[in-house]
Parts: sequence; structure tokens; C-alpha cells
Amino acid sequence: MTRTSTDDSTGPTANAGTMRCLTKHHAGVGLAFSDSHPIPAVGPRDVRIKVKKVGICGTDRHIWEWDEWAAGRIPVGVITGHEFVGHIEAIGSAVTNYTVGQRVSAEGHLSAGVDYNSRTGNGHIASDTTIFGIDRDGCFADYIVVPEENVWPIHKDIPDKYAAILDPLGNAVHTVMSAGVSAKTVLISGVGIIGLMAVTVAKAAGASRIYCTDINPPRLELAKKLGATDAFDARDSGWIEKVRAETYEGVDVLLEMSGAPAAMNQGFQALRNGGTAALLGLPARTVDFDFNAHIIFKGCTVLGINGRKMWDTWYQMEQLLLSGKLELDEIITHEFPIEDFEKAFATMISGDGIKVLMNLE
Amino acid sequence: MTRTSTDDSTGPTANAGTMRCLTKHHAGVGLAFSDSHPIPAVGPRDVRIKVKKVGICGTDRHIWEWDEWAAGRIPVGVITGHEFVGHIEAIGSAVTNYTVGQRVSAEGHLSAGVDYNSRTGNGHIASDTTIFGIDRDGCFADYIVVPEENVWPIHKDIPDKYAAILDPLGNAVHTVMSAGVSAKTVLISGVGIIGLMAVTVAKAAGASRIYCTDINPPRLELAKKLGATDAFDARDSGWIEKVRAETYEGVDVLLEMSGAPAAMNQGFQALRNGGTAALLGLPARTVDFDFNAHIIFKGCTVLGINGRKMWDTWYQMEQLLLSGKLELDEIITHEFPIEDFEKAFATMISGDGIKVLMNLE
Amino acid sequence: MTRTSTDDSTGPTANAGTMRCLTKHHAGVGLAFSDSHPIPAVGPRDVRIKVKKVGICGTDRHIWEWDEWAAGRIPVGVITGHEFVGHIEAIGSAVTNYTVGQRVSAEGHLSAGVDYNSRTGNGHIASDTTIFGIDRDGCFADYIVVPEENVWPIHKDIPDKYAAILDPLGNAVHTVMSAGVSAKTVLISGVGIIGLMAVTVAKAAGASRIYCTDINPPRLELAKKLGATDAFDARDSGWIEKVRAETYEGVDVLLEMSGAPAAMNQGFQALRNGGTAALLGLPARTVDFDFNAHIIFKGCTVLGINGRKMWDTWYQMEQLLLSGKLELDEIITHEFPIEDFEKAFATMISGDGIKVLMNLE
Amino acid sequence: MTRTSTDDSTGPTANAGTMRCLTKHHAGVGLAFSDSHPIPAVGPRDVRIKVKKVGICGTDRHIWEWDEWAAGRIPVGVITGHEFVGHIEAIGSAVTNYTVGQRVSAEGHLSAGVDYNSRTGNGHIASDTTIFGIDRDGCFADYIVVPEENVWPIHKDIPDKYAAILDPLGNAVHTVMSAGVSAKTVLISGVGIIGLMAVTVAKAAGASRIYCTDINPPRLELAKKLGATDAFDARDSGWIEKVRAETYEGVDVLLEMSGAPAAMNQGFQALRNGGTAALLGLPARTVDFDFNAHIIFKGCTVLGINGRKMWDTWYQMEQLLLSGKLELDEIITHEFPIEDFEKAFATMISGDGIKVLMNLE
Repeated sequence: MTRTSTDDSTGPTANAGTMRCLTKHHAGVGLAFSDSHPIPAVGPRDVRIKVKKVGICGTDRHIWEWDEWAAGRIPVGVITGHEFVGHIEAIGSAVTNYTVGQRVSAEGHLSAGVDYNSRTGNGHIASDTTIFGIDRDGCFADYIVVPEENVWPIHKDIPDKYAAILDPLGNAVHTVMSAGVSAKTVLISGVGIIGLMAVTVAKAAGASRIYCTDINPPRLELAKKLGATDAFDARDSGWIEKVRAETYEGVDVLLEMSGAPAAMNQGFQALRNGGTAALLGLPARTVDFDFNAHIIFKGCTVLGINGRKMWDTWYQMEQLLLSGKLELDEIITHEFPIEDFEKAFATMISGDGIKVLMNLE
Repeated sequence: MTRTSTDDSTGPTANAGTMRCLTKHHAGVGLAFSDSHPIPAVGPRDVRIKVKKVGICGTDRHIWEWDEWAAGRIPVGVITGHEFVGHIEAIGSAVTNYTVGQRVSAEGHLSAGVDYNSRTGNGHIASDTTIFGIDRDGCFADYIVVPEENVWPIHKDIPDKYAAILDPLGNAVHTVMSAGVSAKTVLISGVGIIGLMAVTVAKAAGASRIYCTDINPPRLELAKKLGATDAFDARDSGWIEKVRAETYEGVDVLLEMSGAPAAMNQGFQALRNGGTAALLGLPARTVDFDFNAHIIFKGCTVLGINGRKMWDTWYQMEQLLLSGKLELDEIITHEFPIEDFEKAFATMISGDGIKVLMNLE
Repeated sequence: MTRTSTDDSTGPTANAGTMRCLTKHHAGVGLAFSDSHPIPAVGPRDVRIKVKKVGICGTDRHIWEWDEWAAGRIPVGVITGHEFVGHIEAIGSAVTNYTVGQRVSAEGHLSAGVDYNSRTGNGHIASDTTIFGIDRDGCFADYIVVPEENVWPIHKDIPDKYAAILDPLGNAVHTVMSAGVSAKTVLISGVGIIGLMAVTVAKAAGASRIYCTDINPPRLELAKKLGATDAFDARDSGWIEKVRAETYEGVDVLLEMSGAPAAMNQGFQALRNGGTAALLGLPARTVDFDFNAHIIFKGCTVLGINGRKMWDTWYQMEQLLLSGKLELDEIITHEFPIEDFEKAFATMISGDGIKVLMNLE
Repeated sequence: MTRTSTDDSTGPTANAGTMRCLTKHHAGVGLAFSDSHPIPAVGPRDVRIKVKKVGICGTDRHIWEWDEWAAGRIPVGVITGHEFVGHIEAIGSAVTNYTVGQRVSAEGHLSAGVDYNSRTGNGHIASDTTIFGIDRDGCFADYIVVPEENVWPIHKDIPDKYAAILDPLGNAVHTVMSAGVSAKTVLISGVGIIGLMAVTVAKAAGASRIYCTDINPPRLELAKKLGATDAFDARDSGWIEKVRAETYEGVDVLLEMSGAPAAMNQGFQALRNGGTAALLGLPARTVDFDFNAHIIFKGCTVLGINGRKMWDTWYQMEQLLLSGKLELDEIITHEFPIEDFEKAFATMISGDGIKVLMNLE
């Protein structure tokens, strides 16, 4: 193991090399490719990772399209991307737990570790959290630097292609495990990328029966292939009565993955009294919501889901992957070299692809 | 112990006696007093209770005022009232667990016991539940008949005046205990009858600090007397920053007791990331709600609270009463003979009284 | 629907008919067959069930062999047996929820419903509980009478052969679900009848990897067929290091099904710090136990498991059966007519059979 | 804020100064005082704290007396002590969250942060944990060095004398909060230092009634002053029936603080079916235990308690202290200057003192 020659008393290491990356180069649509971005320096508590494979997230699409959210949050010039796998290439002088050469991914939420949530196992919702690829440079690059605390070593039996998407898979796992699906009936409203992952995760985690809704028929078909007991086109609300009849007057668990107010409304109608709803999908704006019918008279529990737990979710995910029960191959539809990023984004945005990867090695 | 001469094979017992009661006599404002209503018969699994003391609930006010909800649910002619204490006066032929003379109250939610929730300790949200004093004859009467399963024997150390209001106290206890307040900071939004009860319950249950909001200054003062650390007029939202500064960037627990959309909005702003909100107050209509800011990004848990658990809540309530920590005397402001029911309701509706009791013995 | 002509005011119905049954006829080894036992009368709140198929439990073996426990508890003359399926043949006058002809089983723990546990969803550990087939007449008979509250209606998609063993399957389900196995590694120590059921239940409920130990090699082989990742002969303790190396320094969950002190000791060694142990197996006597190493320093959670929850476990079981994931056919090894009860018991006691059924229709 | 002149590339800082401390100077009874021990150097991620006030723990007594446990674990030469308050005097070059001058204490369990438990909020039971004052130099000294991650800043409203004993208070809080006492009846078996703290903590955390047992009458009296409903001499087991009669056939929660097998046996007898036992007291050796009667038939939950949660317990403790409900003044009986350590230890060992503090400023 070799350490970089950082000298902490004089600030970040100067580093002569350059690298490829995708940056949000201007306040508008698209990303720009560069092959001569400076390789980032390693602080004393950081590791620098040589990135091998990255995933394109729905968030990256928002950044690409430069919607209202992106325009309000993303600093122009930032390197985007937060789903990846790679190898540690350099470590800071005060790093104690990792060595050069380890295959790793990293949690994208960075927190100083002094906030209440950060110190009690909920760093993903700490108030001082920033996210790489959003608030600071991310992984669509040959190198990314992250604090030692954020590193996740990859188990030898987990292939790169799954290791590259632990971040979104973690969203699905956190949602499923927070609600608790073991021996329960589950409704997943919205089978986009995370919703489809939630189908296979819920099945592996012991759900007894899984129902899905969406307005995209091919995705509904795929949901059935991945383990859904039944899948319904949400535009015909007749499915609600069918599901209520096949269950204890409603499903035990609702996993809301769409953010669509109509889906939320239907989902809560299909939830039994005393059931649990985990909300991951972000509505585009405020929702006109019937608290009495959907939550209070029902006596139900609603969980807000954000990111993934550090590190409970990551261990659960490792267990699920090692169990051999997760079916991810039909969700990862395309891989492109990083240089073909425009094709990669187009494939993802058109809906032709589901999870689209880009390779740097 | 004497049993009534019921003959189950020929149907309910004919009974010559009559009694006093208050009925919803017509589809409009008010209740009517009768002193010659037939005493109800006892079915084989029922007990008949001689009522001694009753409480007037906010729901009774809705029924009195005949608002939209009442007009849509209450059958004209029904005897109202669901908060009471009395003594068992007769038992059905198949009753096994109770004897004539026992001092008792009863849970108002009646369920057949076949529904999923009913069989798994959540009868209060069973789908086949009816409530006495609402869907069938209640306790504003000399006698009430309830199924044996709904009887709650009163501990000898609990005085009648508290025993008469276990139903609403149970709402407060169920809310507080569902959220969990031990060693936590708590915000109670809305200090009406249940909200004030929640203050003393939360303090007795171990809350570290209790904040209250309302728009009624005398009630805020009373909240402080009952144990609130601080109490704020909600019309000036400056309290939110103060509470956030005194806590871990927000309270651990929100107990929403007002049903007011503005209070819900403020309450969630004052809740820390990862906190728990228990919703008891019923909004008058749908609420335009920011799920992203209030629930999803916050990673918080929301509990719909309805009624009280059968019988966990009742045992918890007994424990809290026996601990000597509950301060209810300033919440129970008035007592009237049943014949003065108009004065009793006027006192409650005007806000001069908080919890108003009526006596039948 | 026809009701029996019970007359509640004059006590239990006289009933001319007789039936077949197995009784503990004397204080010694074996059971006696009778074909002229009086058919039991139906109380007002009871149902009488025509029994179709019964299972022989390990407890029935203790009763057969008349060991110390049996001699101390079982009343001579009692009809034994508590695992069965049948159809309701008569209902008492005050029964409200069931009708003649329904296919049902029943929970064997009977409780008056006034005890703390009985009223809070834990009737299986209520202090006044009696068990049919142990403390009062059971199901090794053409007819059994049980209180309405104990009836469990069988879902149409569940075949008789599984419906007859819901009681022991419920032990396995209660153990697995109490510990929680979703996305977790599990060790099952002891793969007798309940242990083998626990293997298939744990797999269906979402366990990531399942390890088993026993000293019976064919049972270990069967455990692997039912879903165990690996299965070890407990006489060579080398397996502990292997399991610790493949997990996070120990399994997340220990399901102790053997009651053997050596297995308990090994099991806790193989449990990770902070893990959960659910204890179902009954040690024959007190155990010399290292609380410091096994529980206190480890910071682990230990759950005592007794019976099954009324009715959470039954609903979970129904969900697991309907999921199609349970593999019970290799556990149910033999069926005999009730008249061949001596052969049935011999098959079970010799270990040639695992779960042995007897048929009455 | 001034940083120390550490130069990370050349190893720990050389430091000319010396300090006072107590060391385990030889493998036998007692500790040795030194006034010329080198002040420890600060690593890049460490802080150095100027110690003001320390507490003597029961563990320190074991080390003083050099019992079997101490002889097997404590390295001769180590500076003992792990309960303290002080001010940060120097910080390492890579420290980001603390500044010189802050008033702080520190968690004594040190973990590298890579273990499963360490990464999932249970660092106190991580497998690689070491404890300062036991495995490495502790706080009976003018200066102690701890990793930044272990620092706990003291709230301005908490006086030094309480801040010095957060470690043992944390044991009591962790035990009470793990079991959950809100609106519950509690039995505390053993009212030594931690047991007495548990009395006031349980009361503040919302226990409805608290029973205590011990064989030391003055401590039982003190327990009553601190909030125990009743306190019994354990040598007469008649208390068990009394407690069972006043509760739901047993207390809801047992907090076992004695480690005495007889107390464990009595405690489980006094625990109701379905209750929770939290075990903190360490038996001196293995215990001959009736798992059937005490755990399995009872269907109860047993929690092994070790240390305190990082950092849930610390936040709970802060809340309890700020609530003003904790009564610690009668538990902290003596304070001595560090130079009078022999008197301090003698006071503690004789039982004349309960919690004994030593002052360095």
C-alpha cells in the first residue's frame, strides 16, 4: 500500500494529472464532456477512487433537463453522478480503515457527524447533509474523492454491474425494509426504476403477494416477470376492489413510488385499516389530501423515505444480493462507454432503457 | 348475584320499566329529554349498566349542532353519549366474566370480532365497527346495554369523575403512547379538551419538555399549569424558530390535536428530521399538503390515531391514573344534573367549560 | 343453517350420539381407542366441529409415554390431540360469527378473556389459559367442542392436509416472525418437526441465508432440501467458525428449537453481537448458562416463544401458505386411519415419520 | 482557536510537559499516584482534554482490588478511569468538529468504525471495541486523549458534577430506555450506584410504579426517596406475591442490576407473562437457570445491556437532565481532590459513599 504524498499542514495536494468527466457546464439542458479536468486532491480523511462503472439516476435526468429543482440547487460546473463502483487509488494521511486497491462504492450523503440524526444512525437525514453529484463533484469522472466514512467495500461475490447501482437499489431496499413486508401483502404504485427494483426486493424480503400499478403496460409486464402477483393499469380503478377482495380488505403495505397524486389516492384506498404506507415518490407540488379517510380513520402509519440508512440498508442490500434472490438483469437494460453519454441519456430519457450504465474502464 | 330472566330462545327480554335519557329527536339542533324511554333489554352476551355519571364529548357537540357529519351519520331517535361510569345491573345468560354490582365503564367501539384488525388487537379500527351513542343507543340515559367484551371494570382507587371520562382520556393516552414520548421533546398543536389531557398525559408518560400551540390564550395558560414547558399563540409563527433552537432542530414528537391545516403546517415545520407525528385532530376537509418538505425529505413517521386500543390503552390509562401523576381536576370544569342538559351543553359549546359532566344519580 | 336445540337456561344439551376417540385412559403408557364415547354437548357460545384430519404433536408423544411432565399435568380420561381440521356441525345459541358447514380449525389455547395478556392480543400467554387435548378434551375424536372465539376458518385454497397442522406450523411461524428474518442470516438449532417447518417458513419469510444444526444426518439433509444454505452436525463444533466467517461475525438470528443445553451454548456462540435469539425448544431441566458471554456483553435480545399469537400468527401463516412458498409435503410423511393409532404413534416415536396425520373421514 | 503544532507526516507530537495521574502500577491491589507522567500526544483525528472532575466506577474498584477479571484484562501501567468532564485543550490536524475550549465528556468505547455494529448505530457492542481506562489510558489524569468521534459536548445547563458521571448514568438510561418504562410498572433488582440512578431515571422516563429489591436497607430507603413506590429486602421473598397482587400478575419490566442469581430468579418470578427483562448486572459465574418457567412459558423478552448507545443514550440522557426530573444529588455523596485518591477509593469500597468523585482542578 502506498500513500499519496499529501502534506496536511499545507492544504490539498497539487496533482498534475487530468481526467475525463461530465459536468453541468451551463445553466441549461445537457452535460458537457471534458477529458482534461484536474484529478481531485485527497484530503487527510478522504479516499480517491478510480471509477469503473456508473449508473444514470432519475436525478441525473432532472439535472440534464435543467428543471426547476435542478436550476434551484445544482451549482453550474459541478461533476454530476452518484452511482458507481471503482477501486481505491489513493488514501489521505489520516485514513485508517481502507487501503489502496479495494473495490468499493460509496454512500452519496455526506454529513459532518455532529447533527442529532448523524450521530444516531440516521445520517441520511442529517440537517447538514450534502450529496455528491448534486452539491459537490460526483462520479461521472475517472476519479472521485469521498470521505473515508462514506466508503462501502464491495463483497467479492457481487459483480460490478450490481455494485454500480447500490445507491438506487438502496432506495428500494430502504423503502421495503422500513415498511416491513415479511409475510405481508404489498402494493407498489409506480414501477419505474426504483419501483421495479422494489418488486424483486419485496419478493426476496418475504412479501407474500405483490401487486403493482402504473400506466406503462410494458413496465407492468416486467413487474410480473420480476415477481408481482398481479399488475394493473392505474387508469382503470377497478383493481382496487379486486385487491381488497383478495386481501384483508386492503394490502398490509403500500410502497408509493410514483409521486402521482392519483396514485397516492388510489394506493391509500387499497391499504387496509392499520396498514403501513412508505412514501418514496416525490409529488411535483403540494397534494390535496384526505387525511381523515386515508390516515386518521384508517389508523395507519406513513413513513417518509429519503435516501437509504447508513449503513443498515447497505448490509441488508448485501444480504439480499448474496441470497441470490434479486433479479436485476432485466432492469439493467443498457451499458455505454462514458464518451457515448448523449446516447446513454437519450436511451434513459426516452424510456427505451430502464437502468442505463456508463463505463469508464 | 342475580341474573335477569332472559330466555334466549324467544329473543330479547320484554321489560316493563322506563328511564330518563337524551335522544336526537329530530334532524336539527339540540337533543330532547325523555323520562319515559323503555329500559333496553339484555341480550345473552350483554350486560346492562345503571349509569351514574357521563361526559359530554366534542362529538356530542357535533350531534347537538347537527352539522354535516352528524346529519350524514346519526340516526334520528338514537340515545347519544359514549363517556360514562356506572354499575352493572343485569347480565345476559351467556355472560361469563362479570357480575351484577361491579363498577364499570365500557369501550364505545363495538366489533363482531371476525375482522382482521378485530382479531389482532386493533378492534378500534375494525371495518365492521359501530360506536354506541353514534350508531346505536348510548349512555345519556339511566341504562345502557353493551356486549360483555366491551366492559371495562374500574379500579377501586379511581374516582367516578375520572372513570366517567376514560373514553376521551383514552384518545389522549393512545395518541401519546403511540408516538412514544419518554425522554423526548413534544409539541402539542391544539389544546382543546383532548389536547389539554395530552399535556398531563405526556408529562406523566415521561416527556422531557412539552410545547403547546393554540389560538386561545386561557387554554395556553392552563396548558402551562398542567405541565407544558412553554405555550405559544399560533398566530405568531415566531415560536417555530424558538422551539427548533431549544431542541435538536425540531421536536422529536408532534401530537396534532387541532385538525387545522395551518397548525399541521406549522407543526411539521417544528418537527425534527426523523421525528414522529401522531395525528388525532380531524381536518374539516382535504388539506393542501407539502409531502416532500413535511414527510419525505424529513424521513419522518406519521401515525393516524383513531379511538383507543382495546385494551392496551385502557391498561396504560389505569397505570397513569394509579401513578398519581395525571392532573385532570382543572380540565373537568363543570357538573350538572342530567335534567340541566341544556345548560351543560351551552357551557361546553361556549368554551366556558372544558370537560362538562352530567350526573344521573 | 340449523342451530342445535340447546336450551341455555337448563344447561348443556343432552345428546344421544356417540363417537370414536382416543383417551388417556390410565396413568401409564399409551392411549385407548373408544368407539362409544358420548358426543360432547354444545354450550351457548361454543361450536361443535366434525373432525376430519388430525396431527400428532410432540406433546402427544409425551402424553403417550407418560413422562414426568404428562403425569403432572394430564387428567386421566381426557381425549388428547390439538391439531386438526374439520367442519362446523353445530353452533350454540349465542354464537354470532360462524355457521354450520364451515371448514375450520381452532386455536388450542382457551382463555376467559379477562386477563391482561388475553385483552391485549397475547391470549396465548394469558395466566388463565387452558389447552384442549391437554387440560380438557381435544381433537383425537369425531367431534370437538370449542368456544366460538377459538375458531379459525380455513381459506378455500388451503388443502386439509396443511389445515390439519396449523397449530405446529404456527409455532414455527410465531418463532420466525417474532425474531424477524427478512434479509437476515438465520441459524436454526434442532431440525425436528418444528425446526424443519421453521426452515421453509424462514425461507418464505425472506431470510437471506439459513444455517441448521442437529445430530440427525437425514434431518439435516432434508433441511437443505427445504432451503437451508448449509446444515451441520452439531457434534463437531467446527461449524461455528465457518458460520461466523460467512456472516457479520455471527448470524443475525438464532431460532433455538432443540432444548438441548449444548445446542443453546453453540447457538449463542454463533450469534453476532446485538443479534436476536428466539427460544422455542424446552430444556428438560435448568441450564447452567453463561449470561455474561451469551447475552449481556453481546447486547442481544432473547425471546421466549410459547404457542402462537392469536391471531397475528394465524394470518401470517395464511399469507405464507397462500404465497405458495411453503414446502410442507416432505415434512408430512405419513397418514393413517384413526383406528391405526398405535402404528401412527410408533411411526412418529421411532423417528421414521416426521409429521404423522390420522384421518377420521 | 489555536491548533497544536502536530506534524502528521512525522508521527505523534513530542510534548515536553508532564501531568498527574493514577496508574495500575503493578499486578496487585491499589493504584499509584504520579505527578510526572508525560502528557499524551494528540494524533491527527484526536482531541486532548484537560480533565476537571472524574467519577470512580465499580469497574475501577475491580481494578483497584485486582480481582480475577482485572488480572485477566488490565495491562499493568495503564492510567485508569473512564468517567469525567473537562475542556478541550488541543485538537489534531484532521479534527473538524471541535474547537479548543469546549466543555466535553467522552464515550469510553472506542471502535474503528468498520464493524457491522459500529456502522449501524451499535458501536458500544462492536467486536473491535476497546475502552479507555481499561484497555488504554483513561481519565484519572490531568489530560486524556480521545478520538474526535468519541467526544460529547456538554450542554451549558448541565453542571460539572453531573457531566462527570454521564458514563454510569448512561448505563442506567440505556437499561431503562431499552426496556421502555413509560406508563409501566418496573422492578429494579439491586440498588447499587446504577440501580439507584435507574430509580430516578425510570421515574423521569414515565414509569407508573417502581419497586426495588436489595439486601442493603439504607440503599432501599434511598431508593424510596428517589421515587420508588416500594422497596423490599430481598432476603424475605414475600414481596413477590405483594407485587404480583398490585400489578397485572407481575411487573411489566424487570431491570436486573445486581448480577445475583437469587435476585434474577426472584425478578423473573415477579415479571408478568409477556414482560421485558433488561439485564445489566453481571453474574460472577454461570447461573443455573430455569429457561422454561422464566422465559419460554412466560413468552417474555430479555435484553442484554452493555455500555450505552452511541449516541441515542447520550441524547436521551441530555433530555432527562434538562427536564429537571433527575435527582442525582443524593447519589453523588463525596468529592475528593485527586491526591486523596486512597480516601476516595476507601469511601467507595466501604459502601459509605455511593458515587464518589475526584477533582483535578
